[in-house]
Amino acid sequence: MREIEKVCVVGAGAIGSLLVGHLGNVTDMAVLARRDEHAKALNDEGLRVSGKSELHTKVRAATDAAELGEVDLVIIASKALAVEACAQLIDGHFPNAHVLMIQNGLGCEERVSRFGDWPIISGVTFMSGTRHSDTHVEYELDTATWMGPWAGGSATYEYVRQVEELFIRSGLKAEAYEDLLPHQWSKLIFNSAVNSISALTDLPHVRAFAVQDNLEDLGHLVRAMMDEAKRIATARGVTLADDPWVMNVRAVNQGATSGEDYAHIPSMLDDVRSKRLTEIDWITGAIVREAHKTGIPAPYHETLYRLVKAREQGYG
Amino acid sequence: MREIEKVCVVGAGAIGSLLVGHLGNVTDMAVLARRDEHAKALNDEGLRVSGKSELHTKVRAATDAAELGEVDLVIIASKALAVEACAQLIDGHFPNAHVLMIQNGLGCEERVSRFGDWPIISGVTFMSGTRHSDTHVEYELDTATWMGPWAGGSATYEYVRQVEELFIRSGLKAEAYEDLLPHQWSKLIFNSAVNSISALTDLPHVRAFAVQDNLEDLGHLVRAMMDEAKRIATARGVTLADDPWVMNVRAVNQGATSGEDYAHIPSMLDDVRSKRLTEIDWITGAIVREAHKTGIPAPYHETLYRLVKAREQGYG
Repeated sequence: MREIEKVCVVGAGAIGSLLVGHLGNVTDMAVLARRDEHAKALNDEGLRVSGKSELHTKVRAATDAAELGEVDLVIIASKALAVEACAQLIDGHFPNAHVLMIQNGLGCEERVSRFGDWPIISGVTFMSGTRHSDTHVEYELDTATWMGPWAGGSATYEYVRQVEELFIRSGLKAEAYEDLLPHQWSKLIFNSAVNSISALTDLPHVRAFAVQDNLEDLGHLVRAMMDEAKRIATARGVTLADDPWVMNVRAVNQGATSGEDYAHIPSMLDDVRSKRLTEIDWITGAIVREAHKTGIPAPYHETLYRLVKAREQGYG
Repeated sequence: MREIEKVCVVGAGAIGSLLVGHLGNVTDMAVLARRDEHAKALNDEGLRVSGKSELHTKVRAATDAAELGEVDLVIIASKALAVEACAQLIDGHFPNAHVLMIQNGLGCEERVSRFGDWPIISGVTFMSGTRHSDTHVEYELDTATWMGPWAGGSATYEYVRQVEELFIRSGLKAEAYEDLLPHQWSKLIFNSAVNSISALTDLPHVRAFAVQDNLEDLGHLVRAMMDEAKRIATARGVTLADDPWVMNVRAVNQGATSGEDYAHIPSMLDDVRSKRLTEIDWITGAIVREAHKTGIPAPYHETLYRLVKAREQGYG
C-alpha cells in the first residue's frame, strides 16, 4: 500500500484550515481553493494555527486542480451544501487518490461518487476552530475525527488506518472504524434534534433540551425525535455506537457546569441567525428519507424538516 | 328577559375599543380599564372609530368596578393571557350581569367561571382593527363575531340572540349559535396550525402553507396538524362547522390575489417578533390537552406547542 505523501484539502474553512495546518507538517500539502486571493494568500504566507496547537506550515494552493499535480489523499472539508461544488473542482483529476469526506449528516459521499470512482472514506469530526483569516485558524475543541470506509465504495479499512495514523502523527485526534455507520448515525441523530430545534426556537443547546418535567417541556420533543430516529436506524440495520439522548444530557450538563454564561450555539442556529442556508437536507432531511425507505413513520422528523425549510424561505 | 341597557367592556385593546365605539351608540357604555390615564382619556374625550365605521361615543370609564354601578353585560375583550387579570377586576361585582368572552382558543370561560357565577357567553371574532391611541381605533376587517351559550354555564340561547341583535343594531356583524363549539373549533384548528407554524418559521400566512408538491413542503405539515386536530375534535364529540384546510387554502389564495405585497401576519408571529408571550397555551396547548382527555395521539400539536414554548424561553 502506497504511503500518503501528498494531501489536498478542498474547502478550507475552519475545519479544512485545521487539517491543512496540522497535516502540512507531516506531508506535502496542497489546497484547492475557490477564490484566487485565498490561494495567493496561502502561497505567500502559508497557514498558521494558534490555540490548542501552535503551528506554521507551507502550502501549495491553486484554484485549478491541474496546477496541483498528483495527490494521494483528497479531503473534502466543506459544509454539506458545498460538497457538490467541491466535487466539480476535482472532477477529472487525481485518478489515484482516495477521498476523505468530513461533513455533517448523510448523503455527501454518494454525491461525490457521481463525479469519479475515487475510493471514499467517510468521516465525522468533533473538533472545532475559528478561522481568523485565510492564513490563520485558531484550534479550539481538540476532539477526535472518526473515519471508516464508505460502504458504497472501494476504500479499505487498512487504508483508513493509514489516514488515522497520519492524523495522529500530525497532532490531530483520530479514530478509525471498520464500520463508521454506528458512529455516524449517533452523531446524526443527536444533530438532527439539537440543531433543528435550536434553529427554530433561537435557543442555544441549553438545559431546557433535557427537561421533561411538564407537558410543554422541550426535553419531551428531543426525546421523541431521538426515539423515532433510533427506530429508523434499527430498521436500516444500524446499531448505534452511543445513545444520542445520553449525549444530549451529558452535553447540556457539561455546559451548565462549565460556567454560567456558557451556551453552545449549534451551527444551524448560527446559520439561521445569519440567514444562511442550513444543512437541514443532509441531517433531519436525511433521516426523513431513510424513514421513507423503511416505511417507519417519522412525524417528528418530517415536522422539524419542513419547519426549518420554511424558515429558510422566510429569509425573504 | 331584561333589556340590555348598559354594557361594560373590560380589556379595551383593539377589539375592545371597536366594541365600545359601536355599542356605545345604542347602549350606556362603561369601560373597566387597568390604567388610570386610559380611564381618564376615555372620560374626557370619549372613543372615536374611523375606517369601516365613523363613530364617536361617550364613555364612563374607571379602574375600579365599584365606580361603574350595575351593568347588564360585561364583555371581556382582552387577549387570552390577560383574562385572569380581567376576571380579578370584576370579582365580586356585577352580580346580575352576563359575561361575553371574546378570545382565541379554548379554556378562557372556565377560568372566568372560577371568579363568579355570571352566565357566560362564548365568542369568536374575526373582525380586526388598529388601536391608534386610548381614544381612537381604526375599524379594518368588518367580519362577524360568532357567539353562543358556554356549555359549562347557564346562559341561554335566547339571551345570546339579544346580544347578537344589540351588536347588529350598533353596526357590527354578529351571528348567534345554539352550539358555538363547531365554529369555535374550526377557528381553533385553523389558528393552531397557522399561528404556531408562522411564529416558528417567521413566515406570514403565505401560499407556502398550502403547497404539498414536494416532501419538504409546508402544506404537508399544515394538513397533518389539521387532520390530527380533526380526529381530536371528533373524539370530543365536535362536528366542525368549516373545514380548516379549506379555510387555509381560501385565505392564502385571497392573499395571493389581493396584491403582490399582501401577506397576513398572524398574531402569534407578531408576538414572537416583539418578544411578547403568545396565546400558544390557549390554542395549540388547548388541543394537546383535549387530545390527552381522549387518548388520541397528538405528536404534531405536542411538537409545535413545545417549540413555541421554547421560543418564548429564548427571548432571554
